[in-house]
Amino acid sequence: MVDEEAMGGRTEFLGSFLTADRRARIDRVLELRTRYLTIVLEDIYQPHNASAVLRSCECFGIQDVHIVEDRNAYTVSRDVVLGAASWLDLIRYRASEGQSVGHCCRELRAAGYRLVAASPDEESTVSDVDDIGVDTPLAVFFGNEEQGLTKAVRDEVEQHMRIPMFGFTQSFNISVSAALILRELTRRIRASSASWGLSDEEKRGLRLQWYRRLVKGSDLLEQRYLEDNREVVR
Amino acid sequence: MVDEEAMGGRTEFLGSFLTADRRARIDRVLELRTRYLTIVLEDIYQPHNASAVLRSCECFGIQDVHIVEDRNAYTVSRDVVLGAASWLDLIRYRASEGQSVGHCCRELRAAGYRLVAASPDEESTVSDVDDIGVDTPLAVFFGNEEQGLTKAVRDEVEQHMRIPMFGFTQSFNISVSAALILRELTRRIRASSASWGLSDEEKRGLRLQWYRRLVKGSDLLEQRYLEDNREVVR
Repeated sequence: MVDEEAMGGRTEFLGSFLTADRRARIDRVLELRTRYLTIVLEDIYQPHNASAVLRSCECFGIQDVHIVEDRNAYTVSRDVVLGAASWLDLIRYRASEGQSVGHCCRELRAAGYRLVAASPDEESTVSDVDDIGVDTPLAVFFGNEEQGLTKAVRDEVEQHMRIPMFGFTQSFNISVSAALILRELTRRIRASSASWGLSDEEKRGLRLQWYRRLVKGSDLLEQRYLEDNREVVR
Repeated sequence: MVDEEAMGGRTEFLGSFLTADRRARIDRVLELRTRYLTIVLEDIYQPHNASAVLRSCECFGIQDVHIVEDRNAYTVSRDVVLGAASWLDLIRYRASEGQSVGHCCRELRAAGYRLVAASPDEESTVSDVDDIGVDTPLAVFFGNEEQGLTKAVRDEVEQHMRIPMFGFTQSFNISVSAALILRELTRRIRASSASWGLSDEEKRGLRLQWYRRLVKGSDLLEQRYLEDNREVVR
């Protein structure tokens, strides 16, 4: 555990290397950040797709993205992501390390999320994204470009969701589909009475994390600060 | 001009090579098709972006896409578009043939469209997509990935529009941005009292166009039909 007061001192010290404008910007973004909605990418194999999804998450204020790598090692496409991923928390599950998608499902459910699959296919129980309730935290699963979601996920989720379509084409590009769903759900979540914002503790932790990313040589500065102030080191 | 009655005969003849299900599907899509909203792609240079936009247009029932090629020759990325473009009307403007983006703007305005720019930048006059009126037909302009829209377009359009964002990232991927705007505007247009559907004449023309694409060897079949029926040839 990090001592809260000590963390505050370090955060303030690192913040002194940023402009007031930048710190204010970070505080505004923190106020809009949410973990009430999270997404799970199951085995996406085109880096530009995964990266475009991360970029959309950042734009819509989603903090956590879960990445399940059963077969395809996930790689970020630098051009598409434009640094967006560095503001997010990426939680990875690697089959090679015994962390299956089932493991991911159990963790999310234990954390209070309702599991929903984004399914382009017509399933008997599929709901329009406009009809998905936002009364509980939601974890939305996206499958890969060819096979969609695995049976393991389809069996675990409580609901299937799709975006209404009007043409011949049967599905959207995955990054498009994710963005449409994120916008629709975040809009309704923000307008709802749910406590969708981060806790003060989460905000403090994230502020320090972001300061560390922004301040050049933050690790050395922090080290010096800790020595000067004889803080309890993590 | 194509003689309406003659065209009907040909359409019916070609349709006899399709299943009843397929013809019914086409009729359903025709009912949902719109030219009330159209989009203009100005000099997009990444084929997978342009293709993803076309795919989204098809999904949302947009029929016309205007493509301005000042510098970048437009090419379709087969993987991404998945045949979506073959259901659309692509209207091209080539600088090399003296068809500038100004020409495109004048034609659209003459056809009754209000011109709106999708601008990620903060402009003084920018409106949220949620506040864009749908009381007149709309043509939405998307600029290229690096420079955005040219000054020529920014000077011509009547309104600038953006999608509300909540993070550090300043802009969406262009195919994401287009899809978000298309969904928001088509949803409101379909719910409005505007006459957003195609005219009967447009539906007949498009039905014949689509039958031609679907029926193998339709050109030879049509030729034979015309000879047998001594129709007035186009």
